[in-house]
Amino acid sequence: MSAKHLASCIFCKIIKGEIPSLKLVETDLTYSFLDIGPLSKGHALVIPKYHAAKLHELPDEHLTDILPIAKKLALAVGCENYNILQNNGAIAHQVVDHVHFHMIPKPRASDEEGLVIGWPAQKPSMDELKELHEILKTKL
Amino acid sequence: MSAKHLASCIFCKIIKGEIPSLKLVETDLTYSFLDIGPLSKGHALVIPKYHAAKLHELPDEHLTDILPIAKKLALAVGCENYNILQNNGAIAHQVVDHVHFHMIPKPRASDEEGLVIGWPAQKPSMDELKELHEILKTKL
Ligand SMILES: [Zn+2]
Ligand SMILES: [Zn+2]
Repeated sequence: MSAKHLASCIFCKIIKGEIPSLKLVETDLTYSFLDIGPLSKGHALVIPKYHAAKLHELPDEHLTDILPIAKKLALAVGCENYNILQNNGAIAHQVVDHVHFHMIPKPRASDEEGLVIGWPAQKPSMDELKELHEILKTKL
Repeated sequence: MSAKHLASCIFCKIIKGEIPSLKLVETDLTYSFLDIGPLSKGHALVIPKYHAAKLHELPDEHLTDILPIAKKLALAVGCENYNILQNNGAIAHQVVDHVHFHMIPKPRASDEEGLVIGWPAQKPSMDELKELHEILKTKL
C-alpha cells in the first residue's frame, strides 16, 4: 500500500480518521464518503489515499482504483441519472486541493438540484483541430 | 480483449474506424480522441471499447483503464486547470449513449470557455445524512 498524507489537508485528515466522515467504500488505496454539502441526495466523494492536488499528479495505481468505487456508489444509491465530476484548479471549481471525484445523482431535470452544467461550445475549424491533433500526437 | 459494439452507436463506429476521428491514445480497452465541438482548446474524450450507456453498466476492467489515459491527455495538452466529467442520462446532460469521459481544459476564469458549473448545494440535516448513510451501508 502506497500512501502519502499532508498534515494540513482536510481530506488527508478524513482518511486518517482525524476528522469524522460518513464513510462508504474503503479499499487499500481509496476512501469514499457522503458529501455533507450535497447537490442532491446521495452525493458522494471518492478520494485517493495519496495526497495530490490534481489528477495528473496522481500515480496510475491510484487512478485505476477510483471508478469501480464510483460505480458501486451509483448502484447503492440506485440513481439512473448522475454525473461524475473531478475538478482541477480553483478556476475549474476545485475547492479542496486533494483529488476528489464527485458522484452526483440528478433526480430530475432542474437547476435546483444536482449538478448544473453550462456548455459554451467553441467553433474551431477542422484545420485548427487537425493542427492541434498533430501537436498532441508528438507529446503522447 | 473484451469488446462489445452496437451497430447503431456513433462511438462504436468511431472505435471501429467506420467514422473518422482525431485519435489520441488507444489501448486494448480504451479509445480517445479530440472532441470536434470542444468547450476549449484540447477538449478530448476517453471512451471504453465496450458499448454501455452508463458508467454503472461498464465492467470494472474497462473502468480501471480510463483515468490513466485522461491523465496522459491532460499532461499532453499541458493544462493546469481542467475538469473531468462523465454524464449519465439525458437529464444529466448525456448526449451520446455510450460512456464517455470529457477532459475539458479551463484556460481562464470565464463562462465563455471550458465547462461552466452551477452548484445548488442542499442543506440536509446531519440526522438526514446519517439516516441515508445507514441505508447505503446495507447496500455496499
Ligand atoms: Zn490530502
Ligand atoms: Zn457504443
